[in-house]
Amino acid sequence: MSALRIGLLGHGTVGSAFERLLADRAERVEALTGRRPEICGVLTRRQGSFEEILEQAELVVELIGGVDDARRYVREALEAGRDVVTANKQLLSRHGEELWDLARERGCYLGFEAAVAGVVPVVRVLRESLAAARIERISGIVNGTTNFILSEMTRTGCSYEVALGEAQRLGYAEADPSDDVGGADAAAKMAILARLAFDVPVHIDDVRYEGIEQITADDIAYARELGLALKLIGTAERVGEGISVRVHPAFLYGGHPLASVGGSFNAVTVESAAITEITMSGPGAGGVQTASAVLGDVIAASSPARARAQTLVGPVGTAVPAPIVQDVLCAFYLHLELADRPGVLAQVAARLGEQGASIRSVVQRGLGENAQLVMVTHPVLESRLAVAVEQIGELEFIRSRPRTIRVIVEEFE
Amino acid sequence: MSALRIGLLGHGTVGSAFERLLADRAERVEALTGRRPEICGVLTRRQGSFEEILEQAELVVELIGGVDDARRYVREALEAGRDVVTANKQLLSRHGEELWDLARERGCYLGFEAAVAGVVPVVRVLRESLAAARIERISGIVNGTTNFILSEMTRTGCSYEVALGEAQRLGYAEADPSDDVGGADAAAKMAILARLAFDVPVHIDDVRYEGIEQITADDIAYARELGLALKLIGTAERVGEGISVRVHPAFLYGGHPLASVGGSFNAVTVESAAITEITMSGPGAGGVQTASAVLGDVIAASSPARARAQTLVGPVGTAVPAPIVQDVLCAFYLHLELADRPGVLAQVAARLGEQGASIRSVVQRGLGENAQLVMVTHPVLESRLAVAVEQIGELEFIRSRPRTIRVIVEEFE
Repeated sequence: MSALRIGLLGHGTVGSAFERLLADRAERVEALTGRRPEICGVLTRRQGSFEEILEQAELVVELIGGVDDARRYVREALEAGRDVVTANKQLLSRHGEELWDLARERGCYLGFEAAVAGVVPVVRVLRESLAAARIERISGIVNGTTNFILSEMTRTGCSYEVALGEAQRLGYAEADPSDDVGGADAAAKMAILARLAFDVPVHIDDVRYEGIEQITADDIAYARELGLALKLIGTAERVGEGISVRVHPAFLYGGHPLASVGGSFNAVTVESAAITEITMSGPGAGGVQTASAVLGDVIAASSPARARAQTLVGPVGTAVPAPIVQDVLCAFYLHLELADRPGVLAQVAARLGEQGASIRSVVQRGLGENAQLVMVTHPVLESRLAVAVEQIGELEFIRSRPRTIRVIVEEFE
Repeated sequence: MSALRIGLLGHGTVGSAFERLLADRAERVEALTGRRPEICGVLTRRQGSFEEILEQAELVVELIGGVDDARRYVREALEAGRDVVTANKQLLSRHGEELWDLARERGCYLGFEAAVAGVVPVVRVLRESLAAARIERISGIVNGTTNFILSEMTRTGCSYEVALGEAQRLGYAEADPSDDVGGADAAAKMAILARLAFDVPVHIDDVRYEGIEQITADDIAYARELGLALKLIGTAERVGEGISVRVHPAFLYGGHPLASVGGSFNAVTVESAAITEITMSGPGAGGVQTASAVLGDVIAASSPARARAQTLVGPVGTAVPAPIVQDVLCAFYLHLELADRPGVLAQVAARLGEQGASIRSVVQRGLGENAQLVMVTHPVLESRLAVAVEQIGELEFIRSRPRTIRVIVEEFE
C-alpha cells in the first residue's frame, strides 16, 4: 500500500522530536494504519514551500507555533481536504470554532491532543470516553513551567525569582517566560477544555487569568504551615445557565487530587455526577512527550476505516453560546499586616461580614505594630470580597496592601 | 433514523444503573450517534430469552457476570454480527483471545472499558492514545475493595477484619469477599491490561497473585512510620524478552504516583520512554460509574461512521506469545522477631548476602528476648530472597515466622 505522506510544519524541539519518534516507531505505525509513514516535506522559517508540501502531503502536522501563519496553513490544508494535527493552543483558543467548523464541513480530521496538557490524554477522554457525560467542572494544572516554579519554591523556600532562574536553567522556562508565568498559556488550554466539556464557544478573551509573578516565599510558607499546596489552577465549570473559565493561583487542601502534582507535571480532574471524578496526570511538556501526543493523533487520523464522525473531528458539534460568568463564589486567604490594638479583628470582620464573607479560620502572629492577621473565608462572590478588601485596606491600622489568594475548599475523597 | 436497539444481559446494580443512565442521557446519545437509544430486551436469571433479544438487538451489553453463560452469549452475539460491550473481566482474562479474534473476524466492536478500573479510561488510552508507544510497565491499584480496606487500616489503625467489616457495611465489599481480597479480581484486570500493553496473550493463570488477608495492623503502622503507603499493586512489565504480570501487597515510597490514591479509588500508571509516565485515577467501582464506562463504549460502537479498524475492535492484533517470567527482582521489607544477642544481625545479613540481597536499611526495636529487626533490602530475585528467608527462619534465635512484604523503590518525579 502507498506510504502515509506527512507534511511537517515547524522543526523546533517538538518538530524534530516528532520526526525522530516517527522514524523510531514506523513499523508500529504501519501495523496500526496499514501504511508506512513518511515525512514528505518540512517547512521552517528558512526553508521549504508550504504549497509544495500541501501538494504532496495527505496529513499536515502543524508545529510551527504562532497564530497568523499557523491559521492560514491549517485553513488551507483543511480546505484542500487534508487531515491536520496541531499542538497549537493559542491558535485553537482564538480561531478554534472556525477551524473545527471547516474540518467538519470538509470531513477532515483535526487532532489537537498535544495542545493541552502534553501527554495527558484529556482531549481524547473528553471527546470519547466522556462524550455522553454531563460534565460539571474541569480543574487543571495545565502549565508545567509554573508548576515547576511553585514546586521549587515549596521544596526549597526560595523566592519566585530564584525558582524562575532555576526553571530557565533547566529548560522548563523560556528566556521570555511571560506567557507561562502570566497565565496566558494556561488560559488558552482551559478555553479549549471548556469548549470540549460544555459545547460552548470559548475564546481566550473569555478566560480571566492571573499568573504567579506576585507569589512570595511567605505565601508558600503559610501554605505549608496550613497543610495546603499552592498551585496555578485552571477551572472551567458550569455556573447556573452559564459557564466560568478562569486561571489563578490557589491554595488546595491536602486531599485535593491536584495537590500532590509536583515538578513540571500537568494534571486534569474532570467531575461529573456519573463518574464522580477522574484525574489524569503526566509530563506537561518536553519535545518527545508532546511528539508522542502528536503521533497518537496521526494514528487516529490514519486508521484504515477511521471514523469521520463528528466526535473524532473536533468537539461534538457546533457550539451553542452560553453566558460567560465573570463573578463566582470562591473562598479566600487574606493576609493583613497591621498595628494590633483592641478591636482590630472586629473591624476587619465587620467589613467582610457586610459583603457576605464569613470567616473560616483566623490566626494572628506577632504583636503590637508588627502583627499579621491571616484568615481564610468561606466562599463569597469575588466582587464582594474585592469591595471588602478595598475597605479593609483603608482602615487606619492596616500597614500595607492586603494580600489575597484564592482557596479551593471542595472536599475530595 | 431508526432507533439504536440495545439488548441488555443482566439487571443487577450495574445493569439497572446503565438502564437509568441511558434514559437520562438519551438526547445526548442521539446527538452523538444520530440515533435514539432503546433497550429492546433485558435478560436476567429469571426472565427473558437470549435468542429473542439477539434477534432484536444490534448491540448487546453483557453485564450478567460469570464466565460460562457470558462466554456463550458474547460468542453468539459476535457470530450473529452484533457489537458487544462487556464489563466482564473474568470472561476476558480467560477467553479474551477467542472473543477478540472472533470480533475482528466478524468486523464487530467489542468494548470492555468497564472491565478494568471502573471509569478510569485506561483501556481507551492504551488502545488509542498510546497505540504507538512502546510501553515498559503498567502499575495499578485496580481493586477498590482492597484499597478501601488498606486505606481504612491506615486511617484508623484497625485490624484487617474490622476494616473488611466496614467495607461490607458500606457496600464496598461483598458478603463473600474472597475474589477481591484474595487478589483474583485484580489479577484478571492486570491480565487484560498486559494483553493490551504488550500484544502478548495473557491468561489469568499466567498472573501470580497474593491478596491482603495476611496484612496486619503492625505492617501498616511500620509503613506509616517509614513514610510508606501499603497498597495492593498490580504490575505488568517487560522483563528481558518476556513479560511479568503479578499482583501483591507492596510498600510504596511517598513520591510514587499511586501512593496517594485512597479510599475505593482505582489508579493506573503507564510508563514508556516516549511519555515518561501517565497516571489516571477515579472511582473503581459503583453502579453508575461502571455504567458510565459502558455507555462510553456503546457510543464508540455506534458513531455514524465508526471505525471498524482493528485498533477499535480490541487489542491491536493477534497476540504473539512471549515468555511469562515468574521470578523477578524486587526489594523486600523483612520483619523478624528474635532474641537479641551479639552477632544476630551478622547471621541474618550473611544469609541474605549469600543470596545476593544487600540491605538498604535496618532498624532494631526492643531488647533481649523480645527484639524486632525490620529491614528493607535492595532488589533481589524473589526466589533467592525466599531461600534466604527460609534459612533465616531456621536460625535458633528467631522467635516466629519471618514476615516479608515487597517494596517498590522506583523513584518517580
